[in-house]
Amino acid sequence: LRNGYPEVIYCEGKQLEHIQHIIVEMLKRNNNILATRANPEVYEAVKEVCEDAVYHKLARIITIKRKEIQLPETYISVVTGGTSDIPVAEEAAITAEFLGNRVERIYDVGVAGLHRLLGNLDRVTGAKVIIAVAGMEGALASVVGGLVDKPVLAVPTSVGYGANFNGLSALLCMLNSCASGVAVMNIDNGFGAGYMASMINKL
Amino acid sequence: LRNGYPEVIYCEGKQLEHIQHIIVEMLKRNNNILATRANPEVYEAVKEVCEDAVYHKLARIITIKRKEIQLPETYISVVTGGTSDIPVAEEAAITAEFLGNRVERIYDVGVAGLHRLLGNLDRVTGAKVIIAVAGMEGALASVVGGLVDKPVLAVPTSVGYGANFNGLSALLCMLNSCASGVAVMNIDNGFGAGYMASMINKL
Amino acid sequence: LRNGYPEVIYCEGKQLEHIQHIIVEMLKRNNNILATRANPEVYEAVKEVCEDAVYHKLARIITIKRKEIQLPETYISVVTGGTSDIPVAEEAAITAEFLGNRVERIYDVGVAGLHRLLGNLDRVTGAKVIIAVAGMEGALASVVGGLVDKPVLAVPTSVGYGANFNGLSALLCMLNSCASGVAVMNIDNGFGAGYMASMINKL
Amino acid sequence: LRNGYPEVIYCEGKQLEHIQHIIVEMLKRNNNILATRANPEVYEAVKEVCEDAVYHKLARIITIKRKEIQLPETYISVVTGGTSDIPVAEEAAITAEFLGNRVERIYDVGVAGLHRLLGNLDRVTGAKVIIAVAGMEGALASVVGGLVDKPVLAVPTSVGYGANFNGLSALLCMLNSCASGVAVMNIDNGFGAGYMASMINKL
Amino acid sequence: LRNGYPEVIYCEGKQLEHIQHIIVEMLKRNNNILATRANPEVYEAVKEVCEDAVYHKLARIITIKRKEIQLPETYISVVTGGTSDIPVAEEAAITAEFLGNRVERIYDVGVAGLHRLLGNLDRVTGAKVIIAVAGMEGALASVVGGLVDKPVLAVPTSVGYGANFNGLSALLCMLNSCASGVAVMNIDNGFGAGYMASMINKL
Amino acid sequence: LRNGYPEVIYCEGKQLEHIQHIIVEMLKRNNNILATRANPEVYEAVKEVCEDAVYHKLARIITIKRKEIQLPETYISVVTGGTSDIPVAEEAAITAEFLGNRVERIYDVGVAGLHRLLGNLDRVTGAKVIIAVAGMEGALASVVGGLVDKPVLAVPTSVGYGANFNGLSALLCMLNSCASGVAVMNIDNGFGAGYMASMINKL
Amino acid sequence: LRNGYPEVIYCEGKQLEHIQHIIVEMLKRNNNILATRANPEVYEAVKEVCEDAVYHKLARIITIKRKEIQLPETYISVVTGGTSDIPVAEEAAITAEFLGNRVERIYDVGVAGLHRLLGNLDRVTGAKVIIAVAGMEGALASVVGGLVDKPVLAVPTSVGYGANFNGLSALLCMLNSCASGVAVMNIDNGFGAGYMASMINKL
Amino acid sequence: LRNGYPEVIYCEGKQLEHIQHIIVEMLKRNNNILATRANPEVYEAVKEVCEDAVYHKLARIITIKRKEIQLPETYISVVTGGTSDIPVAEEAAITAEFLGNRVERIYDVGVAGLHRLLGNLDRVTGAKVIIAVAGMEGALASVVGGLVDKPVLAVPTSVGYGANFNGLSALLCMLNSCASGVAVMNIDNGFGAGYMASMINKL
Ligand SMILES: Nc1ncnc2c1ncn2[C@@H]1O[C@H](COP(=O)(O)O)[C@@H](O)[C@H]1O
Ligand SMILES: Nc1ncnc2c1ncn2[C@@H]1O[C@H](COP(=O)(O)O)[C@@H](O)[C@H]1O
Ligand SMILES: Nc1ncnc2c1ncn2[C@@H]1O[C@H](COP(=O)(O)O)[C@@H](O)[C@H]1O
Ligand SMILES: Nc1ncnc2c1ncn2[C@@H]1O[C@H](COP(=O)(O)O)[C@@H](O)[C@H]1O
Ligand SMILES: [Mg+2]
Ligand SMILES: [Mg+2]
Ligand SMILES: [Mg+2]
Ligand SMILES: [Mg+2]
Ligand SMILES: [Mg+2]
Ligand SMILES: [Mg+2]
Ligand SMILES: [Mg+2]
Ligand SMILES: [Mg+2]
Repeated sequence: LRNGYPEVIYCEGKQLEHIQHIIVEMLKRNNNILATRANPEVYEAVKEVCEDAVYHKLARIITIKRKEIQLPETYISVVTGGTSDIPVAEEAAITAEFLGNRVERIYDVGVAGLHRLLGNLDRVTGAKVIIAVAGMEGALASVVGGLVDKPVLAVPTSVGYGANFNGLSALLCMLNSCASGVAVMNIDNGFGAGYMASMINKL
Repeated sequence: LRNGYPEVIYCEGKQLEHIQHIIVEMLKRNNNILATRANPEVYEAVKEVCEDAVYHKLARIITIKRKEIQLPETYISVVTGGTSDIPVAEEAAITAEFLGNRVERIYDVGVAGLHRLLGNLDRVTGAKVIIAVAGMEGALASVVGGLVDKPVLAVPTSVGYGANFNGLSALLCMLNSCASGVAVMNIDNGFGAGYMASMINKL
Repeated sequence: LRNGYPEVIYCEGKQLEHIQHIIVEMLKRNNNILATRANPEVYEAVKEVCEDAVYHKLARIITIKRKEIQLPETYISVVTGGTSDIPVAEEAAITAEFLGNRVERIYDVGVAGLHRLLGNLDRVTGAKVIIAVAGMEGALASVVGGLVDKPVLAVPTSVGYGANFNGLSALLCMLNSCASGVAVMNIDNGFGAGYMASMINKL
Repeated sequence: LRNGYPEVIYCEGKQLEHIQHIIVEMLKRNNNILATRANPEVYEAVKEVCEDAVYHKLARIITIKRKEIQLPETYISVVTGGTSDIPVAEEAAITAEFLGNRVERIYDVGVAGLHRLLGNLDRVTGAKVIIAVAGMEGALASVVGGLVDKPVLAVPTSVGYGANFNGLSALLCMLNSCASGVAVMNIDNGFGAGYMASMINKL
Repeated sequence: LRNGYPEVIYCEGKQLEHIQHIIVEMLKRNNNILATRANPEVYEAVKEVCEDAVYHKLARIITIKRKEIQLPETYISVVTGGTSDIPVAEEAAITAEFLGNRVERIYDVGVAGLHRLLGNLDRVTGAKVIIAVAGMEGALASVVGGLVDKPVLAVPTSVGYGANFNGLSALLCMLNSCASGVAVMNIDNGFGAGYMASMINKL
Repeated sequence: LRNGYPEVIYCEGKQLEHIQHIIVEMLKRNNNILATRANPEVYEAVKEVCEDAVYHKLARIITIKRKEIQLPETYISVVTGGTSDIPVAEEAAITAEFLGNRVERIYDVGVAGLHRLLGNLDRVTGAKVIIAVAGMEGALASVVGGLVDKPVLAVPTSVGYGANFNGLSALLCMLNSCASGVAVMNIDNGFGAGYMASMINKL
Repeated sequence: LRNGYPEVIYCEGKQLEHIQHIIVEMLKRNNNILATRANPEVYEAVKEVCEDAVYHKLARIITIKRKEIQLPETYISVVTGGTSDIPVAEEAAITAEFLGNRVERIYDVGVAGLHRLLGNLDRVTGAKVIIAVAGMEGALASVVGGLVDKPVLAVPTSVGYGANFNGLSALLCMLNSCASGVAVMNIDNGFGAGYMASMINKL
Repeated sequence: LRNGYPEVIYCEGKQLEHIQHIIVEMLKRNNNILATRANPEVYEAVKEVCEDAVYHKLARIITIKRKEIQLPETYISVVTGGTSDIPVAEEAAITAEFLGNRVERIYDVGVAGLHRLLGNLDRVTGAKVIIAVAGMEGALASVVGGLVDKPVLAVPTSVGYGANFNGLSALLCMLNSCASGVAVMNIDNGFGAGYMASMINKL
């Protein structure tokens, strides 16, 4: 296990007793713990075995803190195209913060409201690495990548309907970005983006 | 046949003699003629049966003029994301011009060079209807649609590679545009965009 | 915000309190408001904060009127292939009417009952712009496009089963229309069609 | 082998000597022979081993006749959407004729020229079974199926580009036909349609 | 309306009152009525407006008989690969019977139990037209098509999981059948197969 | 390297000098060598550096023998659906033979000629493991799997056209086989099947 | 029926009475019985007609034993990438055990914890055949195939989200394995893998 | 333009004169120039207008140097699964070097030869950021991501055949990586990976 890094559980599809069992084992090693894709019932179950577990509802994340982590001066900015992308963005932001990073949130600045992005460009540009979260056409990553000279981690979301095909449209859009400096995560993978951004922010 | 509108031939996959035969028949009716997807050999063959046929190389279009068409005051603007999208854009522009429209060309203003779009916004906004041509991630249509209060006809192109899947990425991106006022044509269908834009410009 | 145009909320996936909050903010600016993809519970929540909100059940739209909009003389016609396409058609029609347009509804005139379309051709042709809504094979858009000399906005619906693949069949059919003057919206995107038709109708 | 039915070879991807060898073997059994997907070089090779082989260029079919087949009174009609669909239609027509059927050809009557179909409806309706061949949006099968009370064998063709995806659009359109009495063949499978239509015509 | 043919309603996605209304209208014209994709609640609603409506539970079909139809001597055979395909097969069989046809059911004779098919070959071959219903790999249609000299209408079902992709595997398998005399219906479209088989059986 | 097993080169997309270089290196270790996907030019190049290299044209394989391998008593049977599948079958057969196995070839016994398979059942059943190679609908694997109580390695081929989508139809068909004892290789992967069959035959 | 082999029922989508009926019939023949995809309700229903039926909850399998089967000395190892893949792995393991095989379970040894695989390599290598079960990127099969000189049956699972597309990512990954000796089962098909592994283990 | 960064041209699909014209314009600004996807003819054309242009054949890159760039101490490592992935890897490596980075090449260390990766782990781990290039099943990125605590940029390649679907298998595999710290580039996008790795290496 990497120094200071938390142990991580992916809760989706796991049974409550199984999760409780894993948490109890982890607590013995006295590490920080991060549980993703946790709904309220999972949280109830975790609280039974660990009283100080904290629930981040929007992000569907449970955190348990046992060790302090030093914060670097630099920060990560997380931008979203719309308000429906916020849960995925929060998964990224909470993950990055729990891994010991400052995070700047700049939400709802997608192409349908480009002026809001332009009006916040300084906060975006000031980051060491940027996470761009967007569904539907996912154009935000290209727009940010074109405006900013920092590495961009693009997270397509499954927000949309019809020819969105559960996030395929945003995924393909981001993979084909003609702006340089954009790499792509799996659809709705806020956790992965937060983790990788933390790695880069601490280089 | 609509008044003043040309007769149209789609040349791809047709044999030279077949095309010559169609042109000869059409010439008898004394209408304007537009032939799309015509390579240089097609042009040579057409010239044999009609000396004043004009070839638009980039657009792969042949035009034969027999009747004047009155130009409306308003204009259509055609914007592209990159320089590789220009052949499709020219197919749209030449079609629209031949159908009797003024056309404003604003090329290579995609998200990788957003400032070039912002610097030309007046010429884009001034149009009655806008054709946005882009490959790869196809974000241009959304960006234009978000900035401008005019109907946008989005044409995805097959420019790109890999997860572009022959234009699928741009097509899906455009269909999922979260900007209002964007409708989509088939991949590489510059002709269709020029035709529909002409219809709208003459309303 | 465009003059006279309403503020728009897309309700799908948003929480009730969030929607109420947005509405309250919008009401302060005294604009017309249009909320799409609103189920009855959303309507109940909206009525709590705005008594005169009107619910269009079939269209799943809530409207709140604060300003009158002048109606142009011309009208938009909305045609559907079957009766199952009517909810999407109504989303388009209500949107267009609320944006200040006359709308002519011509429903259930698809290829399985072509005579019904031919019997209503005058009402279709008389429009300035036509919205064609169809699921399954989506052939209606091509048939209308072939018969009529007006711009057609084609809306594929997810009505069907099997090789329909949630609207893919109608979408591809419409994108490949060999009739000129047809542009395509996202699957089930009645709102987008109504919005764009309004733009065109007011040109 | 079915009585009177020819032996059939599918030439695509077979080597010339291999085809010659198969033909020589077949000739010994003195049956009629039908070779599909045969380009001119294949024909040259077949003529070397069988002087009276006949080549149907458009249909890419070679026929060798050794036995007469009685023609039924009824006929099969073959309709196409455009002129580019004719090669596939001819594969169907020549196959059906060689299997001993009268065939009525009604070409280029697709939705972009619906009046041509309506003007020829008697010849279509008079058939015992109809083969409808169309590419791009493939709407022809639905239109014919809606107008006519006879079994329709729909053949999607790979004619088109972009979101046609090599015939997928026409295939899906035809499979989702909301007109009753339509069954579908593989993309470009004129041979299969001619064969099945012959089976039905002789019932 | 074709002589003797019933009026047909597709119930899926329609509201109960809407269905009742349609039935009441149809009853005035005194035709036979066939309602497909009807669950038990739909049946309850229909019985309220028409006492003698009959429910075919497995087939999810409601029939209302007002006119007798003459049965031809010939029959249609319906074969299935497994027992899970029976609901779709029954939709085809009940439809064909209600349209006035004798039907022979030969179920659960797929490739995993080929001997059962071989043991029933006479009943299959004796039909004028065969409906082959199969999910998963859908090989039954090819096997029947290879053994039997009669037209085969292949109906892929969505039975299966994983790389079945909701019936895609069976659909593609059937479209690519290398046996001659096989045409394909939409996934799970038992009604369409019964209707078309009836057309052919009455030729 | 496994005992007695050859070193293997996949030639597709490699440059001639690069292949020659690899062969020269391998020859130093004095092992048997198998080169797959080798066209005639590759063979010419290999012969320049190794005189006794043998070319198996249909299989597109080059073999160089330096060590004898003991043959087990048992054998592998390789069956194909059609004659167009033979190159892939030969890739499997030659690979298996070169790895030290007896191989029984039973070609062109697909569902369109089921009697030929039934007439050869003993030779199929007698094997320790069976390789079933088929394109188009790929039903052969299921048919063999249903008839025979031995492990079947199914190899889909890209033989076909239209809705075959380069082998996808056969691949999906084989993955969904409802006969037990069938596992699937990549499309056209004759080498892999021969290798795995050899592993099993030598257990 | 193969000697000693159980009769098998696939319960998904079958009605409880239907399953009870099948079991009662099977019990008359006094064979071992294996029922897959059985949820707890199915088990309750089966217990009503057969008291000694055993339920394997994780594997969703019901077994009824009537005959002993001799165990071979060799064993099958079942490895999984993660803990979420265990249900599919158990379906394979229970199937193989019930068919009369020793099974070694080595779970949660995927690429994210490669050292756990390396630490257990002896137990993997010692098997006669290996079942590798993995979702998401499915890399486990390639890693095992590269390390071990035994046949590997790869089972992709539908575990994952986003660009996993219900198991497609793992399926494609496994089909393209560049390690030799890997064959692939349908997504989530633990039963099939256990059955085929048993066949191979008993050769 | 970013400080010290070269101007970039994407040559694919551009005409020779067009490329020459662009280069001449760029040379006036006296910047470094990088031209990607350049075949030998493009290089000949470029040399005509710029004598000191250098061609990197494997990488298909042309470089023109006008300014020195300071090298940081840290380095980027580029790993590939096989030898066929080397051209894409070289595109990444040459790009990164030309942008002013030290690059460590570690090629042909994929899962089929895992020991070679383990034997080179120090050189991989020592880098500040890693580029992992792999085709077929693309498992290398997951394996590296699992072993190493550095950001990994995964580049799927189109190397493979069959169910590889032009790189789709590797792309999906990499997007679904269950190792943390992996982000994905477009298929074959070595340039993009080199560019983004340079950005990260210089943070
Ligand atoms: N490049 C094009 N893309 C799509 N449709 C076209 C194109 N060029 C012509 N068409 C349409 O094709 C029809 C002519 O087709 P054809 O009779 O095959 O030459 C015209 O009526 C146009 O509507
Ligand atoms: N154009 C075609 N499309 C589909 N199937 C065909 C075609 N031509 C021939 N066939 C079938 O292919 C079989 C002959 O295949 P082969 O033995 O490979 O020549 C015949 O029995 C036909 O059923
Ligand atoms: N989980 C499973 N996945 C795939 N095939 C299965 C499964 N369980 C049973 N089978 C196959 O399905 C057949 C029984 O199907 P059925 O007659 O519908 O119960 C058996 O002979 C098995 O070959
Ligand atoms: N091989 C490549 N793949 C993806 N993008 C590239 C590649 N080479 C250059 N580019 C991008 O394409 C832009 C230049 O495109 P163009 O103006 O069409 O030459 C550059 O700014 C790069 O960001
Ligand atoms: Mg950038
Ligand atoms: Mg706009
Ligand atoms: Mg029109
Ligand atoms: Mg009909
Ligand atoms: Mg047959
Ligand atoms: Mg078997
Ligand atoms: Mg191995
Ligand atoms: Mg890592």
